[in-house]
Amino acid sequence: MTHLTRRQMLIGTASAALAAATPLVTSTPARAAVPQAGKQAPGYYRYKLGSFEVTVVTDGKSRVPVTDGFVTNARKADVQAALAASFMDTEIFYGPYNPIVVNTGSHLAVIDTGNGEAAYQSTKGLNGQFLTNLAAAGIDANAIDTVIISHYHGDHINGLLKKDNTQAFPNATVHVPAPEHRYWMSDDELKRAPSPRIEMLFKNARRVIGGEVAKRLRTYEWDEEIIPGISAYATPGQSPGHTSHLISSGNSKVFVHGDVTHAPFLFVRNPGWHPFYDHDPVQSEVTRRKVLDMLADKKMMVQGYHFPFPGLAHIEKTATGYREIPVPWDPLM
Amino acid sequence: MTHLTRRQMLIGTASAALAAATPLVTSTPARAAVPQAGKQAPGYYRYKLGSFEVTVVTDGKSRVPVTDGFVTNARKADVQAALAASFMDTEIFYGPYNPIVVNTGSHLAVIDTGNGEAAYQSTKGLNGQFLTNLAAAGIDANAIDTVIISHYHGDHINGLLKKDNTQAFPNATVHVPAPEHRYWMSDDELKRAPSPRIEMLFKNARRVIGGEVAKRLRTYEWDEEIIPGISAYATPGQSPGHTSHLISSGNSKVFVHGDVTHAPFLFVRNPGWHPFYDHDPVQSEVTRRKVLDMLADKKMMVQGYHFPFPGLAHIEKTATGYREIPVPWDPLM
Repeated sequence: MTHLTRRQMLIGTASAALAAATPLVTSTPARAAVPQAGKQAPGYYRYKLGSFEVTVVTDGKSRVPVTDGFVTNARKADVQAALAASFMDTEIFYGPYNPIVVNTGSHLAVIDTGNGEAAYQSTKGLNGQFLTNLAAAGIDANAIDTVIISHYHGDHINGLLKKDNTQAFPNATVHVPAPEHRYWMSDDELKRAPSPRIEMLFKNARRVIGGEVAKRLRTYEWDEEIIPGISAYATPGQSPGHTSHLISSGNSKVFVHGDVTHAPFLFVRNPGWHPFYDHDPVQSEVTRRKVLDMLADKKMMVQGYHFPFPGLAHIEKTATGYREIPVPWDPLM
Repeated sequence: MTHLTRRQMLIGTASAALAAATPLVTSTPARAAVPQAGKQAPGYYRYKLGSFEVTVVTDGKSRVPVTDGFVTNARKADVQAALAASFMDTEIFYGPYNPIVVNTGSHLAVIDTGNGEAAYQSTKGLNGQFLTNLAAAGIDANAIDTVIISHYHGDHINGLLKKDNTQAFPNATVHVPAPEHRYWMSDDELKRAPSPRIEMLFKNARRVIGGEVAKRLRTYEWDEEIIPGISAYATPGQSPGHTSHLISSGNSKVFVHGDVTHAPFLFVRNPGWHPFYDHDPVQSEVTRRKVLDMLADKKMMVQGYHFPFPGLAHIEKTATGYREIPVPWDPLM
């Protein structure tokens, strides 16, 4: 191969030795430069799961400085080494958000709702993109009949509200995990909140769930089939009532594991690492290892809320942990 | 974690023990099921490269049975094991196509053109999607002023023509590698064509390049800067004049390596494997190892024509070969 450092800086002319079939260069007409689009494609991606249709719709991404406490039981240098090994920024961690829409043929269900329209304004479009990208995907928010919530962190529930605090999905029943609801609505638990950060989460959960949304709320139990084909599984740790969902149609299954693992290049590779936002990091690690074992053993697809968009992957075991293997983008459904 | 085999088959009722804040279930109004979209998102993806804007636009994918000769120097069982390790179909190989558009601010350039509109019809949309997805990306084919071709295989040049054999990019100069053009236009080489498959490639190249396109053709040499910021590098093997392109703006670079490696989960992982379509498999392997070494050493991004969409990755060395690390989809530019 030619050395990359060598470069002929001027545009050369066609070799005179070319076959007679080679025509002369046509001079390009003078033209104004075409403006750059300057805007990402609206991120949505579809796949069939049995007779169901799943649409992953990006809500954008977070922007979190990589500090000493980012992973509570690993050194900052080790976290940065893991980021560098994945060719990621080592000073700022960017974590994507992947809400999904499931059209079961009888229900149109959203699982988790992103950061909400208000965040779109406050973050200047960094996140809170869900409604915009949902519309680009041709899905009418008014046609959503089912919203399923995994847990009460803001990046999963704040999208229930529009920026004027009206409901984003006004015709949907909002299904929430009973243990999660019980925890965040308990005044006793609020009094026991272990940190100002958790206190803030209490206030936010009550603000979002307590208003108009409350009128459409329904709690579901672990092991329950919430709507036909979507069942709830206990995966606590990230929050006390954190719940994952198995979507199943015919022989096809995908495990929507919420925040069991956050960014896979950090926490699938290093399942023993404790991200700072885990409510109970020890319980969370137990859950994480069980889920990753199950996914690897069953070769089951996982849909990761914080995996790189579109967030669909398989999991394999490695010598030191696990590795995610992204399902390639299929240009056809 | 709850066993995944256990499932409550009927929808349960909300626990009566819930806090008073929990409202009653709102009954969902009867509604007609919303039709499924049944159609993939138009695949395009944008990224900034210095002051340039790159848009990757999928042309779809191939569908090739995995036979004994698919990799000429590996057993079918070993190829299938590699596919299975990546959770791919082991009987049918699906290879994506990723043409790109580069807006340099002064030029709007397409690098490779996909399988063409005629293929869209003959494959029922499996490939030949480029023009449709280009339009979805908001790019007018008439505004393309530059087309750069890596080599003369049909999946790279056939998109120069629309289904009525008129030019897909009527206002573009079509820049082709001089050594590639010289080879496929040579009657002597045609006489020496080593197989009926290569003979077909000669006929196709002459059909596509020989018509209206010929009037706008310009040959470029290896090491030449074709337009400011896009330079040509010799990467022969896949075809005699196969060429890669370095796009460079400020300190940002991406190496558009064409078919130096086809599907990364096969040929990046196993750089010694020879796909059946390599013109000179030994030369191709030499090129492949040099390019992969360079990409790994320089930590340079690679844009892979046959990588999973959007085809942007880094390369790392492993004990037995290399591994591609996809650049995650960025929901913002």
